[in-house]
Amino acid sequence: MSQKLREHAISPRRDEDFPEWYQQVVKAADLAENSPVRGAMVIKPWGYAVWEVLQSHLDREIKSRGHVNAYFPLFIPLSFLEKEAAHVDGFAKECAVVTHTRLEQKEGQLIPTAPLEEPYIIRPTSEMVIADCYSRWIESYRDLPVLINQWANIVRWEMRPRIFLRTTEFLWQEGHTAHATEEEALAETMNILEMYRQVAEEVLAIPVIVGEKSPGERFPGAVSTFSIEAMMQDRKALQGGTSHYLGQNFAKASDITFSNREGQLEHCYTTSWGVTTRLIGGVIMTHSDDDGLRLPPRIAPQHVVIIPFVPKPELEDQVFDYAETLAKCLRKLTYHGEPVRVHVDKREIRGGEKNWEWIKKGVPIRIEVGPRDMESQAAMVARRDKGPKEKDKSSLDQIPARLVDWLDEIQAGYFNQAKAFQDEHTHRDIKTHEEMKAFFTPKNKEKPEIHGGFVFGKWCGDGETEALLKEHQLAIRCIPLEQSGTEGECLITGRPATLDVIYAKAY
Amino acid sequence: MSQKLREHAISPRRDEDFPEWYQQVVKAADLAENSPVRGAMVIKPWGYAVWEVLQSHLDREIKSRGHVNAYFPLFIPLSFLEKEAAHVDGFAKECAVVTHTRLEQKEGQLIPTAPLEEPYIIRPTSEMVIADCYSRWIESYRDLPVLINQWANIVRWEMRPRIFLRTTEFLWQEGHTAHATEEEALAETMNILEMYRQVAEEVLAIPVIVGEKSPGERFPGAVSTFSIEAMMQDRKALQGGTSHYLGQNFAKASDITFSNREGQLEHCYTTSWGVTTRLIGGVIMTHSDDDGLRLPPRIAPQHVVIIPFVPKPELEDQVFDYAETLAKCLRKLTYHGEPVRVHVDKREIRGGEKNWEWIKKGVPIRIEVGPRDMESQAAMVARRDKGPKEKDKSSLDQIPARLVDWLDEIQAGYFNQAKAFQDEHTHRDIKTHEEMKAFFTPKNKEKPEIHGGFVFGKWCGDGETEALLKEHQLAIRCIPLEQSGTEGECLITGRPATLDVIYAKAY
Repeated sequence: MSQKLREHAISPRRDEDFPEWYQQVVKAADLAENSPVRGAMVIKPWGYAVWEVLQSHLDREIKSRGHVNAYFPLFIPLSFLEKEAAHVDGFAKECAVVTHTRLEQKEGQLIPTAPLEEPYIIRPTSEMVIADCYSRWIESYRDLPVLINQWANIVRWEMRPRIFLRTTEFLWQEGHTAHATEEEALAETMNILEMYRQVAEEVLAIPVIVGEKSPGERFPGAVSTFSIEAMMQDRKALQGGTSHYLGQNFAKASDITFSNREGQLEHCYTTSWGVTTRLIGGVIMTHSDDDGLRLPPRIAPQHVVIIPFVPKPELEDQVFDYAETLAKCLRKLTYHGEPVRVHVDKREIRGGEKNWEWIKKGVPIRIEVGPRDMESQAAMVARRDKGPKEKDKSSLDQIPARLVDWLDEIQAGYFNQAKAFQDEHTHRDIKTHEEMKAFFTPKNKEKPEIHGGFVFGKWCGDGETEALLKEHQLAIRCIPLEQSGTEGECLITGRPATLDVIYAKAY
Repeated sequence: MSQKLREHAISPRRDEDFPEWYQQVVKAADLAENSPVRGAMVIKPWGYAVWEVLQSHLDREIKSRGHVNAYFPLFIPLSFLEKEAAHVDGFAKECAVVTHTRLEQKEGQLIPTAPLEEPYIIRPTSEMVIADCYSRWIESYRDLPVLINQWANIVRWEMRPRIFLRTTEFLWQEGHTAHATEEEALAETMNILEMYRQVAEEVLAIPVIVGEKSPGERFPGAVSTFSIEAMMQDRKALQGGTSHYLGQNFAKASDITFSNREGQLEHCYTTSWGVTTRLIGGVIMTHSDDDGLRLPPRIAPQHVVIIPFVPKPELEDQVFDYAETLAKCLRKLTYHGEPVRVHVDKREIRGGEKNWEWIKKGVPIRIEVGPRDMESQAAMVARRDKGPKEKDKSSLDQIPARLVDWLDEIQAGYFNQAKAFQDEHTHRDIKTHEEMKAFFTPKNKEKPEIHGGFVFGKWCGDGETEALLKEHQLAIRCIPLEQSGTEGECLITGRPATLDVIYAKAY
């Protein structure tokens, strides 16, 4: 069906079938695809470019807080994993195991040979391999704090993989720090949590709730886990990043000690924290619409795409020159400390097709230029936060003068829209278990519709009760740092409770 | 033994035991260490920072030539590997095989369970998994060329691992391109080879010989392989990067076809190329001396380290301020398009200790400041290309005015020194097999000394003869692109020959 005849570029729409809409946005924006390796994705150039922009933001933030990068082995000996009991329980069910180091041709088939004496697992996270290093590197209080970050690929065997959100292999950064005191390690944990909030809200334009995880959702081996939680357009929660205070658990398991100023040997206090390629899934499900991806400018690989319209081949050179001159001028502008990113799309395909492609890819600003625009020294400017056919004529002077404002407006607009959506679907008036159950029950059983949201309600704090939520496919997303302090009824057990938590369905 | 009593910071010296000297430089510069996972290294912060600078140079060069980055799965199904016969032969002997996806506790031991129906290998290179994608992505000549690069970790099981040079896991970039014609694919292969030469010579200050690999050294499955070859200070060759013209071999194995302008289906012509963390080993063995690492400025994570000398605690604030003011001023300077990187070392350890640490870490310029320097508005400047105790007083005006020149001098000096060394040990006067054998035989059998070099001599071109070199631990490093065209005697067989090749021992 030609684009013109359709109402929207993405089919189905969000309100028709949200999970399928998500897959179609990923496809239409050419971000990634499933690979023949079950559960592992191929991140295509446009998706990887988004990751690169996010990486550069995060890397700068991480380094500005005193951390340095390093690289640790992909393989973890089983004996390392065994050292921390909760940790091994948490990851044993989903890890890739390397058992052989050679292949042999036998009767026309490749057969693994040369078995390893001790198999390795592929890192599902690197606490254990890094703890082993720290136990050797750290001797004295003078060596502390150790503030190291790693950019790496991670493997966790996923039973129900979903592109970007839950994949067998994903990319992430993982910070691992060691400190002399509990106080310092806790401060680091919260400092990083705040960094994640900033990057989510200011760069990705995703409003988040900052809180502590309940025991049932804690990182295996951690004393406490903190997270940022976002609301997707289907009103489900997405955990966007976690920061763990590990106490002395890993230090004791791996013998990370230091001699303090008094010369006594003590165990370190450690933290770990990470965000993953999953955040790209969060960007998609927070901002996209029925025409495809919408990228907040600060995360967009291109801020502006210029589309030259060439009605006759003999005009091509002129129109391309006009487009390039405009591009050069815009690239001199600065947006949040970096040069504005401008692409001129000179491919040999129809202008209308290009236009729709960049809409679906979510580029904040499209500028169309053709012979008529050249005559009037102007161009047609279209913004991704407006309708797909809406465009305004702007003079060549106006465009550079206003471009950064436009980008700021789009960035702020996306955030405000997502914040209003989150507020609208966050309910603080649900007071009993029955009310909560009713709230999370779809109205129409024949056709699942988008329903639910965040219930900001009471919890008695008893970790045993979390299991009861599973039958309703609910979970405590977090215990928000901001607490009301009021009293009420626990929404699971009816017991008296003061703790505020977020109840929601989640990815 | 205190630093002052020793003649050199590294023991043994290069001329005493080159391999051990190398390990000691890696250790003294705190670049990396062996991990408990056999053959896999931990890249420590200073080593990783060198890699990050190299990455940013390469990434910029790769992108400026029209390539984009993407990310492909770590796992490769065995069935993919089987498609290209030479390829599987080349990698089957050294690959990590994933056979299970779960661990179970049994009698207190972790045992792999949940076997995979089809095992995966961990990528030893990504031709096959990328070819599978290209076979789906490419349909028409309009889709070509496809110019994609990936930054990734790679696993090849190493029997004789050596830090940076040969490790079971390493980091690299791998480019994979597909083209409509042989001509275009060949041009890409050579274009990238030239890019590698530039980065090696201009950024890493490593002079290289550019040439084609002989059949025995070709990449498994390639039509032709080109490389850059450098000479280390023990006169052995190090292959620094390879660029492969794959012809239609991989396109036929994985069915990468496109319909040409006439609507006929054709197989693509593909290339692949990569450089790895091995280059850091090349930097170490080319430039370092008996006091440790020497980093060419363009690859140094810090161009300048300022070391404040604080004789009395009450002077600390003043001296630190003075150091920071100087740092701020130097950071405003630009070196090869980037701000000069300056670190102020405020750690609570003795100044002399710091000074030696930065010598061993190879920082190009050290600046010492203390109370006396403050009085005269000056500082003591030491260059890593001069003796460890040589330092010159410079006024605060002079330092920023001359800093970039100093960096340029050091960069050029390192290159020229390495080039002179390579020239000195490249021999063009060896005309017979006997002469070559004598040349590569150590003079003193009791105590192995550094000997040999590059023999620029004739080869008959018969691939069968390469095996004969192995008994002398020699190899044809490359067939240089620059050929003399003269006639002579093949140094292996004595047959008449016109081809010039480089014979050498190699890493």
